[in-house]
Amino acid sequence: MDEIKEILKKVNNSELDCQEAKKLIERNYFADLGDAKIDHHRRIRCGFPEVIYCAGKTANQLKRIASEIYSSGVSVVGTRADSHAYKAIKEVLKNAIYYQEARIVCAENNPVRKTGLVCVVSAGTSDLSIAEEAAITAELSGSKVERIYDVGVAGIHRLLSYKNMLEKAKSVIAVAGMEGALPSVIGGLVAVPVIAVPTSVGYGASFEGVAPLLAMLNSCAAGVAVVNIDNGFGAGYLASMINRRK
Amino acid sequence: MDEIKEILKKVNNSELDCQEAKKLIERNYFADLGDAKIDHHRRIRCGFPEVIYCAGKTANQLKRIASEIYSSGVSVVGTRADSHAYKAIKEVLKNAIYYQEARIVCAENNPVRKTGLVCVVSAGTSDLSIAEEAAITAELSGSKVERIYDVGVAGIHRLLSYKNMLEKAKSVIAVAGMEGALPSVIGGLVAVPVIAVPTSVGYGASFEGVAPLLAMLNSCAAGVAVVNIDNGFGAGYLASMINRRK
Amino acid sequence: MDEIKEILKKVNNSELDCQEAKKLIERNYFADLGDAKIDHHRRIRCGFPEVIYCAGKTANQLKRIASEIYSSGVSVVGTRADSHAYKAIKEVLKNAIYYQEARIVCAENNPVRKTGLVCVVSAGTSDLSIAEEAAITAELSGSKVERIYDVGVAGIHRLLSYKNMLEKAKSVIAVAGMEGALPSVIGGLVAVPVIAVPTSVGYGASFEGVAPLLAMLNSCAAGVAVVNIDNGFGAGYLASMINRRK
Amino acid sequence: MDEIKEILKKVNNSELDCQEAKKLIERNYFADLGDAKIDHHRRIRCGFPEVIYCAGKTANQLKRIASEIYSSGVSVVGTRADSHAYKAIKEVLKNAIYYQEARIVCAENNPVRKTGLVCVVSAGTSDLSIAEEAAITAELSGSKVERIYDVGVAGIHRLLSYKNMLEKAKSVIAVAGMEGALPSVIGGLVAVPVIAVPTSVGYGASFEGVAPLLAMLNSCAAGVAVVNIDNGFGAGYLASMINRRK
Amino acid sequence: MDEIKEILKKVNNSELDCQEAKKLIERNYFADLGDAKIDHHRRIRCGFPEVIYCAGKTANQLKRIASEIYSSGVSVVGTRADSHAYKAIKEVLKNAIYYQEARIVCAENNPVRKTGLVCVVSAGTSDLSIAEEAAITAELSGSKVERIYDVGVAGIHRLLSYKNMLEKAKSVIAVAGMEGALPSVIGGLVAVPVIAVPTSVGYGASFEGVAPLLAMLNSCAAGVAVVNIDNGFGAGYLASMINRRK
Amino acid sequence: MDEIKEILKKVNNSELDCQEAKKLIERNYFADLGDAKIDHHRRIRCGFPEVIYCAGKTANQLKRIASEIYSSGVSVVGTRADSHAYKAIKEVLKNAIYYQEARIVCAENNPVRKTGLVCVVSAGTSDLSIAEEAAITAELSGSKVERIYDVGVAGIHRLLSYKNMLEKAKSVIAVAGMEGALPSVIGGLVAVPVIAVPTSVGYGASFEGVAPLLAMLNSCAAGVAVVNIDNGFGAGYLASMINRRK
Amino acid sequence: MDEIKEILKKVNNSELDCQEAKKLIERNYFADLGDAKIDHHRRIRCGFPEVIYCAGKTANQLKRIASEIYSSGVSVVGTRADSHAYKAIKEVLKNAIYYQEARIVCAENNPVRKTGLVCVVSAGTSDLSIAEEAAITAELSGSKVERIYDVGVAGIHRLLSYKNMLEKAKSVIAVAGMEGALPSVIGGLVAVPVIAVPTSVGYGASFEGVAPLLAMLNSCAAGVAVVNIDNGFGAGYLASMINRRK
Amino acid sequence: MDEIKEILKKVNNSELDCQEAKKLIERNYFADLGDAKIDHHRRIRCGFPEVIYCAGKTANQLKRIASEIYSSGVSVVGTRADSHAYKAIKEVLKNAIYYQEARIVCAENNPVRKTGLVCVVSAGTSDLSIAEEAAITAELSGSKVERIYDVGVAGIHRLLSYKNMLEKAKSVIAVAGMEGALPSVIGGLVAVPVIAVPTSVGYGASFEGVAPLLAMLNSCAAGVAVVNIDNGFGAGYLASMINRRK
Repeated sequence: MDEIKEILKKVNNSELDCQEAKKLIERNYFADLGDAKIDHHRRIRCGFPEVIYCAGKTANQLKRIASEIYSSGVSVVGTRADSHAYKAIKEVLKNAIYYQEARIVCAENNPVRKTGLVCVVSAGTSDLSIAEEAAITAELSGSKVERIYDVGVAGIHRLLSYKNMLEKAKSVIAVAGMEGALPSVIGGLVAVPVIAVPTSVGYGASFEGVAPLLAMLNSCAAGVAVVNIDNGFGAGYLASMINRRK
Repeated sequence: MDEIKEILKKVNNSELDCQEAKKLIERNYFADLGDAKIDHHRRIRCGFPEVIYCAGKTANQLKRIASEIYSSGVSVVGTRADSHAYKAIKEVLKNAIYYQEARIVCAENNPVRKTGLVCVVSAGTSDLSIAEEAAITAELSGSKVERIYDVGVAGIHRLLSYKNMLEKAKSVIAVAGMEGALPSVIGGLVAVPVIAVPTSVGYGASFEGVAPLLAMLNSCAAGVAVVNIDNGFGAGYLASMINRRK
Repeated sequence: MDEIKEILKKVNNSELDCQEAKKLIERNYFADLGDAKIDHHRRIRCGFPEVIYCAGKTANQLKRIASEIYSSGVSVVGTRADSHAYKAIKEVLKNAIYYQEARIVCAENNPVRKTGLVCVVSAGTSDLSIAEEAAITAELSGSKVERIYDVGVAGIHRLLSYKNMLEKAKSVIAVAGMEGALPSVIGGLVAVPVIAVPTSVGYGASFEGVAPLLAMLNSCAAGVAVVNIDNGFGAGYLASMINRRK
Repeated sequence: MDEIKEILKKVNNSELDCQEAKKLIERNYFADLGDAKIDHHRRIRCGFPEVIYCAGKTANQLKRIASEIYSSGVSVVGTRADSHAYKAIKEVLKNAIYYQEARIVCAENNPVRKTGLVCVVSAGTSDLSIAEEAAITAELSGSKVERIYDVGVAGIHRLLSYKNMLEKAKSVIAVAGMEGALPSVIGGLVAVPVIAVPTSVGYGASFEGVAPLLAMLNSCAAGVAVVNIDNGFGAGYLASMINRRK
Repeated sequence: MDEIKEILKKVNNSELDCQEAKKLIERNYFADLGDAKIDHHRRIRCGFPEVIYCAGKTANQLKRIASEIYSSGVSVVGTRADSHAYKAIKEVLKNAIYYQEARIVCAENNPVRKTGLVCVVSAGTSDLSIAEEAAITAELSGSKVERIYDVGVAGIHRLLSYKNMLEKAKSVIAVAGMEGALPSVIGGLVAVPVIAVPTSVGYGASFEGVAPLLAMLNSCAAGVAVVNIDNGFGAGYLASMINRRK
Repeated sequence: MDEIKEILKKVNNSELDCQEAKKLIERNYFADLGDAKIDHHRRIRCGFPEVIYCAGKTANQLKRIASEIYSSGVSVVGTRADSHAYKAIKEVLKNAIYYQEARIVCAENNPVRKTGLVCVVSAGTSDLSIAEEAAITAELSGSKVERIYDVGVAGIHRLLSYKNMLEKAKSVIAVAGMEGALPSVIGGLVAVPVIAVPTSVGYGASFEGVAPLLAMLNSCAAGVAVVNIDNGFGAGYLASMINRRK
Repeated sequence: MDEIKEILKKVNNSELDCQEAKKLIERNYFADLGDAKIDHHRRIRCGFPEVIYCAGKTANQLKRIASEIYSSGVSVVGTRADSHAYKAIKEVLKNAIYYQEARIVCAENNPVRKTGLVCVVSAGTSDLSIAEEAAITAELSGSKVERIYDVGVAGIHRLLSYKNMLEKAKSVIAVAGMEGALPSVIGGLVAVPVIAVPTSVGYGASFEGVAPLLAMLNSCAAGVAVVNIDNGFGAGYLASMINRRK
Repeated sequence: MDEIKEILKKVNNSELDCQEAKKLIERNYFADLGDAKIDHHRRIRCGFPEVIYCAGKTANQLKRIASEIYSSGVSVVGTRADSHAYKAIKEVLKNAIYYQEARIVCAENNPVRKTGLVCVVSAGTSDLSIAEEAAITAELSGSKVERIYDVGVAGIHRLLSYKNMLEKAKSVIAVAGMEGALPSVIGGLVAVPVIAVPTSVGYGASFEGVAPLLAMLNSCAAGVAVVNIDNGFGAGYLASMINRRK
């Protein structure tokens, strides 16, 4: 928070009066677009740009927010983006590209260098969309990613044949619906954090992802933590955060 | 239902009037102890004696019911039996023995010959009581049983080392709390029915066994069916039923 | 697992180096289609081919997976198949046929001989689709099937009139929504395993099948096990597994 | 509401001023004991005295309330009464008697004549306490009662053998825990209202009576209505209300 | 069950052999349409014809079932009927009429004479559809009906002004969504059974009718019983059953 | 309730007979439109006109109700109004205007003077619609409103920069989905009532607003109360009620 | 926040260096007792002292916290206090008194003058403890309180007879378990905020207070807001906050 | 997995026959104590010793398991240990010490060197036990720990004053009950992973920790993952795993 210290020093040196100082500090913190407040300090605080959750935002809101973020010199990442959201952002940011399976729009700006390996493992082919959301997010936030898909526990040998690759990862993202057992098995195989992502794939007593969510929270393997149902983005982001640690 | 046919024939031959016939058929069906009706026909219909669910029954009720069943020539099996229930039954049936871990009382009467193998597999040592309820029930109803305990999925190699034994079974009972992943993994390893028993072992988001129950109902392995939380008895009974099939 | 032993022997005899052996074992296990891994060993392990859960898969995924399975010499069975899924599979497998009510596509390949009787019983006409999914699955996996439909417990004489047929079955599949009482009544009538299938038919406090699911899990009849809500496939598969037991 | 009309007429005839009239009407309505307000008009409105729900009330509260009700000339009925509650009421009302199984205390005062038949049917011996609460309540509020206990649906012939008696009833109370199927079967057998009482008997996925509650609400038989879990009192009261209809 | 007795007598007199007798009894019981079994005995057992739950049935099923019921000499009542269902039934039964608000189709056949008063009370105008389902059902099954709509408890004087009419009813149907308080207030005003119908009207923490369902089950007024969420039919049917009691 | 007293006096003076008096009192209370009963006394009792919940009402119902309310001299406010509802009301009340974001229609009639400040604070831009419903409602019922949007707790400095404005409010409405933490933080910053509105914004374990609802009910800050999920109207109405207190 | 401004001015005037200023600001904010941080500024921010939630705190923790709060010149209020908690606080604060029914300990220190009326209304005598918690809290935080107990909606005339008193209140606290209908009825009678407190009184489908909680959240009366189950303290605190508003 | 490779090489060199090799591999993997299987390879695979979950284990089981683990050369850590569990382990391992608040027993054996900082932050003093479980676990598995307790969000300045310390951590553990908002606020302040631990502290609509669990899963801050309710151990273990990453 060096900027704040600088401002306080100026107050001390009477280079700034109190009223002015207050405004400066606030302005430094976020850009007020009326119904949206862009958090420019976030990059300093957290190391990643503020991400746009596109669902439920109008084309106009998306354009204003995307422009504001991009103009501050960082990449724009939009999640839960359908083709309309993509078009809106593309209009103001020509270099925007669309990862359809992952429902992510990205306009890179001073992209980060990729380091460290994250394995994204999924139980079934139906979990693909969420697994890709995790994988793309991890890549955009600075990680190398290996995808290991359709290796659910009912054919355990499929997963076991990837043990070597899993052991090279700095963290593993395990994506699964139905009984959600994948993170427990992986947690017993490797010595790195496992980020579990329950998916809403399934029917009946899956209850839109409640079954794998509960299973993952009750994992008998230590070293497993869980994010929200279908929250591939959160898992990818956290994996990079673990990965980038100085 | 040959007895019923016999009675109907006698009606036809005027050896019995209708009023009498009705009574006979009913008497044949169950013994009325007032607040309990012992279902003697069950043995004929289903092959097993009626089992006493001991929880919530008074010592007097237990004695009357146990005597009535035993006197009809079959074994008495009491589940969810604490030491008081055991004492009550022991008073009227001297050969009664108590399986404490399994909370089962049994007084055998013309015991069945054991055939066929049932594997009872448990995820943790805390599931022991329910696993034993399943194992003892399966034995008392005519199955040979192998116990494979504490082989949860977070150390998958422990389970895999028992693959040969599992392949010899005619059905497998998989007992697990927490994430309840054991039946899915076993279901992918063997070609026989897997009876899944969720247990209430755990805390927090286990919700007294809801987490493994949902996981098991959503098993991605085919050939898995589920019984009630902590229902070791039901699993053991069903395993023998599958086992004994002509 | 004789193939694996063979490979190990060759390693022992230096006919194979370790690197090669590892690859062979893995290849033997599954076919890697990228986002799907076909489990060819499953047939050996479990006796049935891997079944395709069609919901949520693209036409291209379905074609690739169906071809891969069929080319290995076994029948292809696709569940939760709408007409688009049928068309996709039909394009690559000309002998594919569509059971519309059951939402199943099947292209038979060395079909199994049907043995043993499975009764599929449903409570109402609205449960038909799930009952048919169970019945067709049981037939395709080698069972003879008798259908007894619309015999719910509120007109108990309808069910009782089929008692003779039920007694001939090697297992009974009981399909019911609403109060889900059918399996309990059947479980008291017959001496064979009853596989209970709750359906999402109903409204209000049925909660999309939760009411019959809970009822079935709490069945007072022993010998009853439960599969997921609307999981006709799972019930049919398990019934054949019980049926085929050597 | 003739008393009110009388008061209004007196106002009209200037025999009463408005202030007085208001007080009279209110006093007529209930007796204010401070933390309890005894509803004497209820007997006029509803035909039964106000019943005391004993659980959670102190001995002093019970004594004051019981005395107040009894002094107005009607019977006192206390539900959910343990032995302490009984002692407290017995102290002030010497003719109080205690139905232990039903947890009901009663001090009769101008008891009603019993007419009409109510059948109280229970699924198991563990439901006895709730079934007795229903039966005693129905008797105390003016019905003849027949008890048919331990006739759950897993031995359907037990219930069927009581069909004649059921057909004579003016309403049937069906008490069941576990899968709660009894009301549906009875509803299909008789042409009178069936009052369903779910009980908290059971374990695991019974969820303290939720399973039979949902089953009963989803009954496929018409003519079934449901009261709260373990609410034997409410069922007995309603049965008499139906029974007494002019 | 006089028909059955007749058949048994004939067996006794050797006018019928056993095989024939069995068939006769069964045929007497229901008409088998394959996927539907029409329960002709129901009218004898329960006093009402079997009602068709139209949702989820095809036009063909509806036609076959409606014809079969009508041809047995009783009225046809179809619930949850959309305009397609109406058209289908109209095709085979020309006198069918459609109560759109209530979603009921009816083709009367020897209609019953209406006796006794049922009050149908609703909390809001949004509950109208369910209230009408209850009202029409009660009328078709032989009751006179008074409708008192939009008298929810937040303007309690509206309800109180109908007290006289409520006191004339033989039973009251109380239909309410949201907080579902109507049945409790009415239960305190009248001395007749109150049948409570929770509706799915509302949003948020109404949880599709769970809020009023729970409120009604916990009613502090005695004499209240509850049917399924949105089950206007069940309430109307039960009200007539109470009404018609000899 | 002076009108009632007047009527009672006239009865006393024999200026009115009892029958007439009863009718007058009722008529004074509400206008009966058949399926809707307009509560004209409400304005006197509660200070606000009866509000129309537009969802699920037909155009005709809306017109009749809106006209009746307006003709009594107060403003008409319709919530959950789509464009069809707006058109219907506009037809009969030409001065009706439509707040699209808030889904509110209003035709003002003797509008109240605005006094006192209410702050409406929202966590994200996706909560805008509910926040606007609260803000417009508060304005229409007589409050001045300041909007502070998109100041969720994950960038706490954004909220803190509005502390001065918050301290000037007479009550604060805090609108939030997801983890619903906003009311707790605000409750710790200000000394006035905080009305918390959970929104259904979010996905997965948000369970349509259950997550923020529970969070808000468990707020560790005192002075927080909660309204239904997405109930912006209720919050705005309550804020004005607090605001207007004499 | 004048203290902070003072400090900032001193920084400006070089009367304070930055390091010192930071410490001063923090110290001003709270007292650090290690495992507890007493929030002395809260009184300035919110107008009430920090309240101690006694449940789960050791005697030592209670003594230290109570002393620290009292020494700052404000009253100490401890909620959910059993007799042990009372003894502990009494040891260090001799003027502490214990409201047993309300489970509140209080040692007054410069007590506030009581102004404005709050009505605390309860549905049954079993809700007394929570109602008293609300009443005592409201009194201790500066309100006059009227108690109206045991006036549940099943005897609606009891509540109506208190209408005059309710109309004099500045806010009403409505405490109810079971169906939780009281706040809706009161909300329709008065023109002031109604704070609804669901209680865990009841059994079965009350689900420890979930039934009244949902009912209250769905109240059809506007002007109602809800606090946590059994949170009498929160309701009393909020009522005083509304009451004291300048 | 170098040991396995060594064994395979020996097979290749005919230094081992296949039968022997299989046994060796298995023995290497775990120690079979009958009802418990100690996973010695876990330390190699995962870097931590197998931890004993003490709840529900007998003194004998604890002794055998603790001895077996200790004898393999690693530290023994027992969680959810009451004083009986401590005594049992102390008997066989004299250097065992007991962290009472954290309910952890530990007998160190070649303890790891502590590196890197983990901040354990708790919302209230009632969360202390779980926070300590997390802190002790993190220390025993090799992390330096700073404790920041009682800094819940309703007094946000308390947390903000620790911002400097939080910024130095390599990961933060946020422990909170009630509304569970702490992780979201911290997640917005720091650029490292936040591990959220919901606690069962609270009452009513906290539902034993469900409220904070859902809040944390829905955190609007990225970089937050969640473990089971009250799972302080899991959080501490994961924090060290992140911390130790090479």
